[in-house]
Amino acid sequence: MLHLYTDSSPNGFKATIALEELSLPYQLHHVRIDEGDHRKPEFLALNPYGRIPVLMDTETGVQLFESAAILLYLADKTGALLAPKGPTRWEAIKWLQFHASSLGPLLGQRVHFTLFADTPIPLAQERYQGLTEEAFKVLDQTLVDRPYLAGDDYSIADIAHFGWLHIARIIQFDFSHHRYLSEWFERVAARPAVRKGVTLPAPATGA
Amino acid sequence: MLHLYTDSSPNGFKATIALEELSLPYQLHHVRIDEGDHRKPEFLALNPYGRIPVLMDTETGVQLFESAAILLYLADKTGALLAPKGPTRWEAIKWLQFHASSLGPLLGQRVHFTLFADTPIPLAQERYQGLTEEAFKVLDQTLVDRPYLAGDDYSIADIAHFGWLHIARIIQFDFSHHRYLSEWFERVAARPAVRKGVTLPAPATGA
Repeated sequence: MLHLYTDSSPNGFKATIALEELSLPYQLHHVRIDEGDHRKPEFLALNPYGRIPVLMDTETGVQLFESAAILLYLADKTGALLAPKGPTRWEAIKWLQFHASSLGPLLGQRVHFTLFADTPIPLAQERYQGLTEEAFKVLDQTLVDRPYLAGDDYSIADIAHFGWLHIARIIQFDFSHHRYLSEWFERVAARPAVRKGVTLPAPATGA
Repeated sequence: MLHLYTDSSPNGFKATIALEELSLPYQLHHVRIDEGDHRKPEFLALNPYGRIPVLMDTETGVQLFESAAILLYLADKTGALLAPKGPTRWEAIKWLQFHASSLGPLLGQRVHFTLFADTPIPLAQERYQGLTEEAFKVLDQTLVDRPYLAGDDYSIADIAHFGWLHIARIIQFDFSHHRYLSEWFERVAARPAVRKGVTLPAPATGA
């Protein structure tokens, strides 16, 4: 049995979307970050870094945190959402890692300085607005001639980016001027598993 | 033939260390960031995001950027530095992703605000000092009872972290108060391939 420990968040939605796409049975555990559940000993035993999502697979004994690791695991477990070998596999992993190391962390910092920092720091706000805009542009250029990031087929690279861009749109980090990225967003957003995934464990509120 | 496009940097050293560990023949292309090589059209054709390292494998047609993707590719190409399956494989991928999404990007932001920002912003300096210290602590706790991040065997997870911690030490982002992390650092630093990898294409200067 798969157990997913998560909250409504950009990284959490990557895991719920993938599980819904794969029609895998799983038990959902709501880690309420606003109530401090992620700092409790029972959660820190699953992830000493105190971040969601966490996936446990009692069948294989694998226990994972980091959403990109979870996406790779679910894809390789099922043979879906990622080509088993060849250049298409690596194209998907390249864009998965671009999200995991660049766009995702940069959006996280932009959220902090724009929405959460106690003291506004305009230089930091501008820095992360500029860096996320640069990353949006790279995605937009890539999607000029392909429907999905790895090529013809929807993959875990799309799921990773969608998890965050769903939130980016809710909190009005605008990317609508990037035509190909926006068209890709609508294409992914229309998938039933995506529509369901972004409501688990609860829809995002933008707060 | 493998072609590596890189400069002396935390992310570049991950690729050179892995290639040296695997004794793979490769052609090294020095992308001189201080001379703007990464903004030239011929490099942007390899990576539209303009970051090193980039790996091309002319045998398979795979072309990759993002150091974590390159590490995964080299490991799976050779069957070394990463278990082919099972919980040990996923333990290594989990810590690789922890580096790629958390410690690596946080150290990058700390470098910016501590060493490169035109205007000092104490709040931002403190933020990234605190966040990297939190990540160091998680690594230290993990290494209490194991010699390497994934367990008994050295893996691409160690290489990823070492690439950045080698630079952290040079620029005096101190982690010496973390005993297990420091012991791990010395263990990895003593490897001949690591000693060679951090000199390619040139040793880091701390500038």
